[in-house]
Amino acid sequence: MTEESKVFVDLNAATMGKSDAPYGLIKDAAIAVVDGWIDWVGPAADMPDRYKPMPRTSLGNRLVTPALIDCHTHIVHGGDRAAEFEMRLNGASYEEVARAGGGIVSTVKATRAATEDELLSDALRRVDPLIAEGVSCIEIKSGYGLDLDTELRMLRVARAIMANRAIVVKTTFLGAHATPAEYTGRDDAYIDEVCIPALRAAHAEGLVDAVDGFCEGIAFQPTQIARVFDVAHELGLPVKLHAEQLSNLGGAQLAASYAALSADHIEYLDEAGVVAMAKAGTVAVILPGAFYTLRETQAPPIDLLRKHGVPMALATDINPGSSPLNSLLLALNMGCTLFRMTPEEALRGATQNAARALGLTDAGTIAAGMRANMAVWDIKHPAELAYRIGFNPLHCRIFGGSA
Amino acid sequence: MTEESKVFVDLNAATMGKSDAPYGLIKDAAIAVVDGWIDWVGPAADMPDRYKPMPRTSLGNRLVTPALIDCHTHIVHGGDRAAEFEMRLNGASYEEVARAGGGIVSTVKATRAATEDELLSDALRRVDPLIAEGVSCIEIKSGYGLDLDTELRMLRVARAIMANRAIVVKTTFLGAHATPAEYTGRDDAYIDEVCIPALRAAHAEGLVDAVDGFCEGIAFQPTQIARVFDVAHELGLPVKLHAEQLSNLGGAQLAASYAALSADHIEYLDEAGVVAMAKAGTVAVILPGAFYTLRETQAPPIDLLRKHGVPMALATDINPGSSPLNSLLLALNMGCTLFRMTPEEALRGATQNAARALGLTDAGTIAAGMRANMAVWDIKHPAELAYRIGFNPLHCRIFGGSA
Ligand SMILES: [Zn+2]
Ligand SMILES: [Zn+2]
Repeated sequence: MTEESKVFVDLNAATMGKSDAPYGLIKDAAIAVVDGWIDWVGPAADMPDRYKPMPRTSLGNRLVTPALIDCHTHIVHGGDRAAEFEMRLNGASYEEVARAGGGIVSTVKATRAATEDELLSDALRRVDPLIAEGVSCIEIKSGYGLDLDTELRMLRVARAIMANRAIVVKTTFLGAHATPAEYTGRDDAYIDEVCIPALRAAHAEGLVDAVDGFCEGIAFQPTQIARVFDVAHELGLPVKLHAEQLSNLGGAQLAASYAALSADHIEYLDEAGVVAMAKAGTVAVILPGAFYTLRETQAPPIDLLRKHGVPMALATDINPGSSPLNSLLLALNMGCTLFRMTPEEALRGATQNAARALGLTDAGTIAAGMRANMAVWDIKHPAELAYRIGFNPLHCRIFGGSA
Repeated sequence: MTEESKVFVDLNAATMGKSDAPYGLIKDAAIAVVDGWIDWVGPAADMPDRYKPMPRTSLGNRLVTPALIDCHTHIVHGGDRAAEFEMRLNGASYEEVARAGGGIVSTVKATRAATEDELLSDALRRVDPLIAEGVSCIEIKSGYGLDLDTELRMLRVARAIMANRAIVVKTTFLGAHATPAEYTGRDDAYIDEVCIPALRAAHAEGLVDAVDGFCEGIAFQPTQIARVFDVAHELGLPVKLHAEQLSNLGGAQLAASYAALSADHIEYLDEAGVVAMAKAGTVAVILPGAFYTLRETQAPPIDLLRKHGVPMALATDINPGSSPLNSLLLALNMGCTLFRMTPEEALRGATQNAARALGLTDAGTIAAGMRANMAVWDIKHPAELAYRIGFNPLHCRIFGGSA
């Protein structure tokens, strides 16, 4: 028993843990926290005597969930693409937008031109609204540098967010995001001369928690991704993959063959890919923001994922081009509205399964042994989190046991 | 010149007024405010001498727009429909939801059961996030009472919001929203025995700024709406109409024949209806939140509205069933993303044309003679307001000249 011990009382807990109750719901619950970790959770009436002397904090009969986790973002980047958004809506073709310097090229240019301080203050502007909706952990990818210096700068900025805000950041190296202009037509050379050396350098600096790629006709082929993944495994890093977003190149199967943490987007995933993911324990990260923004019509195979028991996560994919979506709660609504996920699947996708997509074993549920990162909501039922659109009912966030 | 005079400087103004510049943009502008009204706006370099002694407030080179106006909401209501949302996503049929007491019936029940204080505190929870995104005026409809007492209570609550928050509320009587259970199969009797008497009573109490109806196969026929509109005109009240949302019953033409302020939803509107609206000066109120939530596929005829010069407004339609959308900024994005409105049309739809849809001549643009209700944004270009999804860049709101 230390000074850092406390008990939260007067609450209902959607634990999202193992339970027969939907949402792992415990009514009239108590949560004991010791040194920033959850020590016990259960019905208040069953609380063991050892917690009874601890100071108590009433949560006013509010609903408590695990803090949210945004497991797929590109939140560190330079510039925005509002002008391109407007050009398109004013009738410009993709060609005209490209001629005007639009597309990912413009984000790469702006990111390369930005200082670490600029990238950080821009990113914090986007991180703060996530924190305000109960997020305690975000994944952040590189991939707008596409040269060694800028890829590492992006990852350093991602790590620096942890020094500036009460949030956990997991970094993902995404050198295989696109081929930069200076390597046009030489994708293989880019992978060998820039992407893999940058990965090694970033790893040497301790900046990489996982390795990602973009496997698509407009990006990289499976054989190129495999070369990057081989290096990742050599370095002992887990992998994940942007796969089957616009077509089916077998990316998810490739990812599964590397025991990937997750395959992300997967609108065009087929049953063989789903089965491969199920066998490998690879999480399906569903990203409705890009589907909505690009006005796609092919939804990910939610029924097949259910059938084969593939865990589903939900994330914002915050990026300046295909998903300028800055709200994880809104991603929950989109997952339900656009993809017919249930509200419970949606919330699990931003808690338990998001943690799994990041390889975290200490977050995503309210259970003994987990970090005491929780969200306290002014709602009665957890389904309200996915039901409302553009409404934030957060009462407060608990981070490391502190409200 | 009074103590209430001031000049806002160091700003760019998207005035949304008459101008050849997109958004009516004036760079390096100044805005002179006297007693809560805009007295002058223009390039700071051209500011007349009489404003020079006034106290100055720097807006730090931010972008200023007219305060936003949400011209179609059902923000006063009892209960929520999260359980129904979840039932549907868990596979329940509409019949099963109805048997479980779902649908508009459940909102009528909850609204009738709620006290004025409960309705007010619930509504304020939804109003506050709108204020936080720069909204200075909202329209609020009755229509979940469907009996005289509750219809009037809803309108009193709507008016009471003005006493509790710095916001303008315009009230709309929507007795012709649905037929309550006690009048099932007797729509005409409901109109004559409840709706029209309630309208007269609400008007006598000074609670009605406009009269609305729901013209649809599942609601009321044009002949029934016309009886309500006749009374509205007799009382000197302007009308508006939920029209052509799910089918084309000629509601917009009916509304235009009554010189309606607006016809709202209008997904199924045809060119004859568009022409009638153009001739009558009726505003098209576009409501993408319901389209999104109901997963409709027929978009409103934006091109025809443009072709015939019908002014387009955009609103949230905040309601617990078909549009639990609580963000006007998100409605701007949806108008662009789902309906291909331009960012300028979207912003005009939540400012100048929203004012017009409410019959307001003192709001919606930054111009001499307008109320000094403005929004100050941490953005460079007004297109950013529609581009981002679930992100609020408001720096501060100016209401009656006060920040
Ligand atoms: Zn991505
Ligand atoms: Zn409505």
